[in-house]
Amino acid sequence: MRNIVLKIAYDGTNYHGFQRQLPLKHSTIAIQNILESKLEKIFGDKIEIAAAGRTDSGVHALGQVINFHTNGTIPVEKIPLAASGLLPNDIVVLDAWEADENFNARHSAKSKIYIYRILNEKISNPFINRYVWQIRYPLNVYSMREAIKILIGRHDFSAFRAAGGAPMSPIRNIFDADIFQSYSNELQIKIHANGFLYHMARNIVGSLVAVGRGKFSVDNFKNIFESCDRNLAAPTAPPQGLCLYQVFYS
Amino acid sequence: MRNIVLKIAYDGTNYHGFQRQLPLKHSTIAIQNILESKLEKIFGDKIEIAAAGRTDSGVHALGQVINFHTNGTIPVEKIPLAASGLLPNDIVVLDAWEADENFNARHSAKSKIYIYRILNEKISNPFINRYVWQIRYPLNVYSMREAIKILIGRHDFSAFRAAGGAPMSPIRNIFDADIFQSYSNELQIKIHANGFLYHMARNIVGSLVAVGRGKFSVDNFKNIFESCDRNLAAPTAPPQGLCLYQVFYS
Repeated sequence: MRNIVLKIAYDGTNYHGFQRQLPLKHSTIAIQNILESKLEKIFGDKIEIAAAGRTDSGVHALGQVINFHTNGTIPVEKIPLAASGLLPNDIVVLDAWEADENFNARHSAKSKIYIYRILNEKISNPFINRYVWQIRYPLNVYSMREAIKILIGRHDFSAFRAAGGAPMSPIRNIFDADIFQSYSNELQIKIHANGFLYHMARNIVGSLVAVGRGKFSVDNFKNIFESCDRNLAAPTAPPQGLCLYQVFYS
Repeated sequence: MRNIVLKIAYDGTNYHGFQRQLPLKHSTIAIQNILESKLEKIFGDKIEIAAAGRTDSGVHALGQVINFHTNGTIPVEKIPLAASGLLPNDIVVLDAWEADENFNARHSAKSKIYIYRILNEKISNPFINRYVWQIRYPLNVYSMREAIKILIGRHDFSAFRAAGGAPMSPIRNIFDADIFQSYSNELQIKIHANGFLYHMARNIVGSLVAVGRGKFSVDNFKNIFESCDRNLAAPTAPPQGLCLYQVFYS
């Protein structure tokens, strides 16, 4: 069988996250349900997708990677346009290629970049508010940048792990993390790691914002991180600011 | 009474245009209905809005200007934040000020700029497709730019006027018109005129795109424009690419 890999982008606003939902469990549908049903029309056989990141409800993707095995014969270069005729406007196939039989979009991934966008303005912007967390009080970006640098390296990220997640090692390696500020007071928090615990990116952002507004000092942030105690950290940042930006394979 | 002026922005996707609708006439509501009902809560009296541009269903605004008379006492500098607490996320009050009694956002306007965005790519972009007309075949931007320059000046725009519009003079003055192309193959068609006939901006764009794809030569375009015959011009461009960008007063 062929092993087809797709790079996809989506606006997650209208979906119940990436991962397939049982029919009728939720009033909104998951992105995986839509992709599988439309890909089945293109390839003619039953499609089961593996995805690099199982983004939450309301989270977006610019560089999600998925793969699936199929006997369908459509040439890879024709897949993006064929898919665009079937998919809704807010889900797009950017690129398609064939991989070795053993490639798996989830398990073969070496690292991922997530970007979290904050609009630090009193007045919102109707053209980007689906993609940002708007924060109306001023943020000290200098302190936030000091705090995020503490996270770089191989650490126990239990302080930023959602309660009730599946049991797995809380050790992750953050290769790079930084905060960019645009002329229009948009902050982009970039985190490049070998993997992310459930809600890890949004929990980090929540505590960085607590630093930015002066609720935590940079030292508090460091102590909370080192305590490995989720209860000491700030609440989870809302989903709409988060975007799966890029996935790396070897 | 005070005469309050607001500069507003909106994503028109979910609305039946700007102009107030009779209840139940349409399943979607007009922006004016929402603004008037929320402003009545802020000001405490009945509000009737005049707007610089009565944008169509699906058309957006970055610089719409409205005014209304009120006995309400809220200071103008508090209006944007007060409104943001009441308005839906896709309608934003950017600025507020007081004007002379005789100022009318519609009749006092000297000129307006509309911008029409085209995404000239095979693959769509889920983050901007609510705001662009996606055209998958290549466009000759050089010819389109030659064509749009023909429109500059005081002319009869009957060739680009919607059939069945209200009877009024078809003479308008285009001060400036140009096409910008971004590195990401987005075209922005800018038209600055003293006024716009019904559907004029979208009809001009429809015929410019016919030039861009080679259906009309630049000479054809000129002849159609000078014929003043709407039937010879190309179909109206779809609404979602259009944005009321700026309104000028003396």
